[in-house]
Amino acid sequence: MDIEYTAAGVIADLQELAALTSDEKGAQRVAWTPVWDTAETWFKEKMTAEGATVTVDSAHNVWAKFAGETEEAVIIGSHLDSVPDGGWLDGALGVVAGMGIGKRYGIHGVKPKKTIYIVCWADEEGARFSQSCMGSAAISGMFTAEKAKNLTDNEGVRFQEALQRYGLQAEDFSKARAEFLEKPIAAYLELHIEQAPVLEQAHKSVACVYGVTGCYRQYLTFTGQQSHSGSPIAMRHDAFLAAAQASLAFREIGIRHEGYCTVGKVAVEPDVVTIFPGRCIISLDQRSIEGATLDIMVAEAKQAAEQAAADNGVTVSFEEIWYTPPTVFDASLTALCQQAVEAETGEAATMYSGPLHDAVEISKVVPSVMMFAMSHNGLSHCKEEDTPLPVLKQAIRAFLRLADTVVNI
Amino acid sequence: MDIEYTAAGVIADLQELAALTSDEKGAQRVAWTPVWDTAETWFKEKMTAEGATVTVDSAHNVWAKFAGETEEAVIIGSHLDSVPDGGWLDGALGVVAGMGIGKRYGIHGVKPKKTIYIVCWADEEGARFSQSCMGSAAISGMFTAEKAKNLTDNEGVRFQEALQRYGLQAEDFSKARAEFLEKPIAAYLELHIEQAPVLEQAHKSVACVYGVTGCYRQYLTFTGQQSHSGSPIAMRHDAFLAAAQASLAFREIGIRHEGYCTVGKVAVEPDVVTIFPGRCIISLDQRSIEGATLDIMVAEAKQAAEQAAADNGVTVSFEEIWYTPPTVFDASLTALCQQAVEAETGEAATMYSGPLHDAVEISKVVPSVMMFAMSHNGLSHCKEEDTPLPVLKQAIRAFLRLADTVVNI
Repeated sequence: MDIEYTAAGVIADLQELAALTSDEKGAQRVAWTPVWDTAETWFKEKMTAEGATVTVDSAHNVWAKFAGETEEAVIIGSHLDSVPDGGWLDGALGVVAGMGIGKRYGIHGVKPKKTIYIVCWADEEGARFSQSCMGSAAISGMFTAEKAKNLTDNEGVRFQEALQRYGLQAEDFSKARAEFLEKPIAAYLELHIEQAPVLEQAHKSVACVYGVTGCYRQYLTFTGQQSHSGSPIAMRHDAFLAAAQASLAFREIGIRHEGYCTVGKVAVEPDVVTIFPGRCIISLDQRSIEGATLDIMVAEAKQAAEQAAADNGVTVSFEEIWYTPPTVFDASLTALCQQAVEAETGEAATMYSGPLHDAVEISKVVPSVMMFAMSHNGLSHCKEEDTPLPVLKQAIRAFLRLADTVVNI
Repeated sequence: MDIEYTAAGVIADLQELAALTSDEKGAQRVAWTPVWDTAETWFKEKMTAEGATVTVDSAHNVWAKFAGETEEAVIIGSHLDSVPDGGWLDGALGVVAGMGIGKRYGIHGVKPKKTIYIVCWADEEGARFSQSCMGSAAISGMFTAEKAKNLTDNEGVRFQEALQRYGLQAEDFSKARAEFLEKPIAAYLELHIEQAPVLEQAHKSVACVYGVTGCYRQYLTFTGQQSHSGSPIAMRHDAFLAAAQASLAFREIGIRHEGYCTVGKVAVEPDVVTIFPGRCIISLDQRSIEGATLDIMVAEAKQAAEQAAADNGVTVSFEEIWYTPPTVFDASLTALCQQAVEAETGEAATMYSGPLHDAVEISKVVPSVMMFAMSHNGLSHCKEEDTPLPVLKQAIRAFLRLADTVVNI
């Protein structure tokens, strides 16, 4: 089975999955909902037909095993779940490329040297229960039964209730790591779309991903004193203007350190046309590939927020939501990944990822690497998400080359 | 009945009304709700006891008439309705001060030269149906049956339904102006709290109000392209940062023109921690006492918003909500008002109002003037709204002086 044929099959399968699990607004494979179940059933049936042994672990990660000459194994995976109104490639690309590899080494193909697992990590997006990378974080030990017990969705449904139809309990999530560690895993490979316009603007189709930024997330609450829009500006304590000033300063901090600063959520109180805000709450997400740089960016943001608060006669408080340090992937796998990219494109393009991925969690327990396919306009998490088919095929081919190498070492 | 005795009675009545219509969160006299009805009944009974003839017009404005030597009349009024969790003085002060004047000239007092009407204008706050100055705007002809038919509250209750318990229909609102114009009205006087910290910071207790700012309100929609918080800052089209930059520029425009610019409502989309906003909608409320200045401020704000949009690679669109030109009150009444303030405080303090009031509407049909009592910390529309009692009494005394003069000319 040649690479070109496999790559064409991956694209056909991606299109089939999109048709099965999307509506006019985009992909609807939100984890712990029926459309996601449909996608998983589709995956299981396809893999069983190729001779795989399909199992589901205690974190509801779905495993398709293709036995090799040895038990030592390579995992190829990503996630099938999407955000609501999502795109056809985010997550699905890595899983379906894995399915292509399964076909190359299944009953219709050749037996690989290493055992291969194609894995769908459960709930990467966290769209329903606000917990990203749930399945892979259960493997790394970061997502536990304790956390699982406390989740509810926006309708107030408890995660524990939603788990019933999957035959799971919150307690099970703490077992997934031990189950994983019983397997002799040598490597983890993940193909994903870039979700940013870096490759496209550099006229590249595919790159080796050598690491993922660290991330610090917090809420900032600016508190002033609301009052009537007919009160003199000079006497105001306007919480929104303080937040606006701070947000513009955060961008400069991100640019100065070649990192990322994002104000994604904004809420003002009382949110009335004729009253200037007495309170403004914003989220700040900061990222850098360098741990020390991220620390500096977080410190500078605190200072900038306090300065903006002082300049506007308001106060500011900080609430950490989440922190993860930068990830640097395995050097040997990174070298192999670069070689595969170079063999396919003539250039050993390499980059780091701003967005987080399941590979960040999995790399905590086994040597890992990622590969990125270019995203058109850098768009993802929307129905416009796309990679032109010739580019997509080139990326899939490069990834198949990498997998061929790693499973046969 | 001396002024000191009347002023003390006004404060006692204000306290009685607050006790009757407030809870631990503040005043709850929201128009078209039972607590407001309670306040109106209290007003009617008190005025009837003083010998007034109480009537309700077709816009549900409540009139207490004290006949004078002539039919030519002076109206003294304000509003009894409050915002939810409101203060004890906003609106109530002007009505209850009027009640004090009613007592001075009712069955226990002396017959005035002019006829006196103490009026409670219906629904100044617009807290339930989002229509400010409803009763007074019915008098000026700005609020019509047509508008009344289209109002609904946040629970989806139509204004027409709410009117049933008041024995009114939407059509009636168009009759109120003609009913008003049948009466020979010579002047309208309104005492109100300032709702801003200007008087307090100038160490003044009371001022003549010679006019009210004009106001232009609009929504601005900044549209960029949302994407992942891991995408490079330089490649973003961040709608929120454009709105933030514009909002800070609006403040400078307000300061430069000694006017008011307020961004009160802010909404970002999709409002997610890990996605920078592709859309941001803000409200902008601009005010000036000079019509030409207001026009310039609005033009400059448009320019600043377009500049901010261009700087951030986004677009901006504008939607007008409302416009009212500046109001300048009657010169003769303003002179009398200044004299009353000077007689009471030793200084003829004068100012204009940023907030709008019923007097703006009434001044369109009869000569009018307002007087302001200092607001502690400039606060209103909250339970903290207050004016220290000695200051409050001084303001009431000044207003009683003005009314004594005007009703006896």
